[in-house]
Amino acid sequence: MSDNIKESYEHSSQRMSGENKTLGQTLTLEHTNDPKYHEDIHERVKVNYNGIEKSPSMEEIHNWQREHIKKDDQSKEGYPLNVIIDPAMREMYKVVHDAGMTNVFDRFSQQQPIQCKFCIEGLSCQLCANGPCRISPKTPRGTCGVDAHTMVARNFVYRHVTIGTAANIFHCHQAARTLKAAGEHPESGLKIRDGEKLKKYAEMAGLDSSKPIEKLAIDFADWVMNDIHAPFHIPSKTVEAFAPTRRKELWNKLGLFPGGGYSEVAYAQTRCMTNFTSDPVEFLLNSVRLGIANEYQGLFLLDIIQEILMGTQEITHKKQNMGLLKENFVNVVTNGHMPLLAHIAIDMASSDEWQQKAKAAGADGIQILGHVCEGQQLINYEGTHNQKGYGGQEGEWLSQEYLLATGVVDLFMFDYNCTVATMPLFAKRFGTKLLSTHPVIKLQGTDTLDFVPEKMAEQAAKALDMALEAFKKRKSENRKVYIPPYVSDCMAGFSTESVKKALGGSFKPLIDQIANG
Amino acid sequence: MSDNIKESYEHSSQRMSGENKTLGQTLTLEHTNDPKYHEDIHERVKVNYNGIEKSPSMEEIHNWQREHIKKDDQSKEGYPLNVIIDPAMREMYKVVHDAGMTNVFDRFSQQQPIQCKFCIEGLSCQLCANGPCRISPKTPRGTCGVDAHTMVARNFVYRHVTIGTAANIFHCHQAARTLKAAGEHPESGLKIRDGEKLKKYAEMAGLDSSKPIEKLAIDFADWVMNDIHAPFHIPSKTVEAFAPTRRKELWNKLGLFPGGGYSEVAYAQTRCMTNFTSDPVEFLLNSVRLGIANEYQGLFLLDIIQEILMGTQEITHKKQNMGLLKENFVNVVTNGHMPLLAHIAIDMASSDEWQQKAKAAGADGIQILGHVCEGQQLINYEGTHNQKGYGGQEGEWLSQEYLLATGVVDLFMFDYNCTVATMPLFAKRFGTKLLSTHPVIKLQGTDTLDFVPEKMAEQAAKALDMALEAFKKRKSENRKVYIPPYVSDCMAGFSTESVKKALGGSFKPLIDQIANG
Ligand code: SF4
Ligand code: SF4
Repeated sequence: MSDNIKESYEHSSQRMSGENKTLGQTLTLEHTNDPKYHEDIHERVKVNYNGIEKSPSMEEIHNWQREHIKKDDQSKEGYPLNVIIDPAMREMYKVVHDAGMTNVFDRFSQQQPIQCKFCIEGLSCQLCANGPCRISPKTPRGTCGVDAHTMVARNFVYRHVTIGTAANIFHCHQAARTLKAAGEHPESGLKIRDGEKLKKYAEMAGLDSSKPIEKLAIDFADWVMNDIHAPFHIPSKTVEAFAPTRRKELWNKLGLFPGGGYSEVAYAQTRCMTNFTSDPVEFLLNSVRLGIANEYQGLFLLDIIQEILMGTQEITHKKQNMGLLKENFVNVVTNGHMPLLAHIAIDMASSDEWQQKAKAAGADGIQILGHVCEGQQLINYEGTHNQKGYGGQEGEWLSQEYLLATGVVDLFMFDYNCTVATMPLFAKRFGTKLLSTHPVIKLQGTDTLDFVPEKMAEQAAKALDMALEAFKKRKSENRKVYIPPYVSDCMAGFSTESVKKALGGSFKPLIDQIANG
Repeated sequence: MSDNIKESYEHSSQRMSGENKTLGQTLTLEHTNDPKYHEDIHERVKVNYNGIEKSPSMEEIHNWQREHIKKDDQSKEGYPLNVIIDPAMREMYKVVHDAGMTNVFDRFSQQQPIQCKFCIEGLSCQLCANGPCRISPKTPRGTCGVDAHTMVARNFVYRHVTIGTAANIFHCHQAARTLKAAGEHPESGLKIRDGEKLKKYAEMAGLDSSKPIEKLAIDFADWVMNDIHAPFHIPSKTVEAFAPTRRKELWNKLGLFPGGGYSEVAYAQTRCMTNFTSDPVEFLLNSVRLGIANEYQGLFLLDIIQEILMGTQEITHKKQNMGLLKENFVNVVTNGHMPLLAHIAIDMASSDEWQQKAKAAGADGIQILGHVCEGQQLINYEGTHNQKGYGGQEGEWLSQEYLLATGVVDLFMFDYNCTVATMPLFAKRFGTKLLSTHPVIKLQGTDTLDFVPEKMAEQAAKALDMALEAFKKRKSENRKVYIPPYVSDCMAGFSTESVKKALGGSFKPLIDQIANG
């Protein structure tokens, strides 16, 4: 045993010192996403928009897919075209792939053959310097002694549950800051669009709803932020005010009634440390507790606050996909999950003043398109507003690299989540300006705006100015572009209120249908 | 490519379904730490205290080690005896190893040959269901697109920095709850032992220190807890009050001045989500910001609060190691990092009442020994108190399994951190009662006390009663035990105040020595 160990020590220290055989050492600057190491990307990466085979229509692809799924055989065209059903993305995938650029479908296929079977099952742990450890019948415990159940449950909590809970509550926290700014700073461009909803929920929270609406917005926002920031041992006021009575009784009985969400996250993180909690059941129960905080201090209140600010959605028909991009427009794509700055930018881009500015820059106009979940929120919001500056919805997170490859996206602005790390490379190659609108998300070599809700009008103007500049550069350089000509229809705007209205003013028809199976 | 991928999909889903070839499926109940699957451990695991070779003296081992380290050759006795320099642990390791029980040194050696080189370098990621991913020259980016720098920096933040920061601030938070209880509930057994220190720091915090000391304790505790729970965008009052002016200027300039610690942790966690922040430098800067919160809202205030409650330490000489265990005593070992309940238990065990109870149970007395960092804090505390119920210091986290294997530890109580997951197996085999004193740490099949600082006297009594019961059971079953006969001296009690006193009332001699090199 001892020679074996000695050798192993030597290998470990060699690997960690980075001196010779480390994997890290074999990587080159070409392998980073930092655009400063890719100055020549525009010359080096040749893009040929004409060399690709055009997509069949969406209907034809759907038919082909259905047939092949039926026969459990999708291999006709090979991966990834056998899984991409959007004709626009099929074309743009070919453009990007043929140009030899990194992209999500190719990366997925490269990773498949080397996926680690320990990692897949959660049976590997890298929490401390006594590891990394792997669990198998020959080594049923990590060095510290955790068994398989503990390792899997703990990985689940610190890697997925605490991060997810933190992120959703963080999101609601930023929405509450914005609601407060709307109450305090009417010059911010922020509006309280659904005052009735604000009154209703402020009353449920036990606040005095007879106050002027601006003052009530401040009170409600503070109430939400205080609850998010309460200690874990103080029962959450949000959960108390909004959860069903019988659930609350059960949660109290089981010790699952949460306190303030951030304190809960830190508490759960603490338990995940090496040589801390090792009861796997306890980790799973803790996940439920965090789930409750996540729902009430995160998702539920976030929805309410966003509807107060942006208006409660109504059912509507809209358009989506890359065919909505217009070569001679200033095209702004807004990505992420917090359409707080974006909806002000749409208000602004819809004004004659900004349409004129776009024309002065040589464009036919300026349009803002949504992308990912932020886009879905904007499409809902647009149901009630129908503004000139809104261009429709683009794709989901898998499509962003291919979207930039069209060459016509002048500004890609994003806030929170779902912006991939390679965007700086695509932005550099295809002339897109990248802009983060919250420091919570920073990309390599990319501009970031501070999150200052009371200055959103000013910030939105800055973003649109950047888009105009990028458009002018695109035109002056006479860059080649390609817009896949596909647009499809969609129905959006499903809120509790709009669904009730569509059902004729009562949920009974729906409940009856469910009850009848 | 497509066949390859199809096969890979099939393997993945097979592995995840757990139906046939999963690693998880090959594990048996024998491989868990849950004591209910080890009912027969006492009969099955044979322990032979006489079969082992006794250790040479500590001095001899040190000499041998020095010689061999000099020659870069430690293989004489083989691993792990070539790295264990404590004679007590050498003997107990042999007992445990020969009995075929799992233990930390053997687990370490089993893990070495299969350590993953991707995990060691931080070049593997399991954050989302698009992975797990590994980075190498052939696959320089994860499926989502992160490069090696981002992956390593992000792993570092969410796996180490956020957990560590959360845990230290959590610790301080519990100390503050305890200080508040000391002010509000004199019947709790808690005392404010260093009122001058409380006044001094409360004044620096801007509080009115002319109030009665109990009231001031409550105010200061609330001030600390409020700061820990403040939003990340409100500059920390703790950092403002206690950090050096020039550091604060620099931190402000660099955007590293933190807000409330828990909100900071959640903010950093949010950034670690898939497709969020990907600038590696940003992750490292965030680590510094968390480090500042960790220091002031965690470690620094924790120290101050603990000294307020337990008294500021003075330099003293004490004893340590397993030789302090006494076969005919009720032996309580207290493990962890928060000696809040433990120091009350020592006060109590030092009373004639409890020594009499121990005698009534057939023992010569009852003693409480410290273990790990909690023990180090108790040894410092003992410098000023010298109580009958205090037995001295045991080892560090590596020694706990071997300590229980002596068979004479009646109660092993623990709070926060450094209790290994296999303790339930050792407790079951060697008749030790396990007791967690804070729900933040739960072990399989183990009792846990709620953390209720105002009821600490009551809880300490409950713990000592458990120890008495376990002692009686040990005696009635006439169990074989072995206490390695090694004790060594140590010097403890180094506080700012005690070091200053030892230097003759001024730090100048020390500063001069440092200045002179
Ligand atoms: S926490 Fe335990 S299982 Fe994880 S790396 Fe450390 S020793 Fe290994
Ligand atoms: S976050 Fe990225 S690198 Fe990590 S597992 Fe997911 S796809 Fe792979």
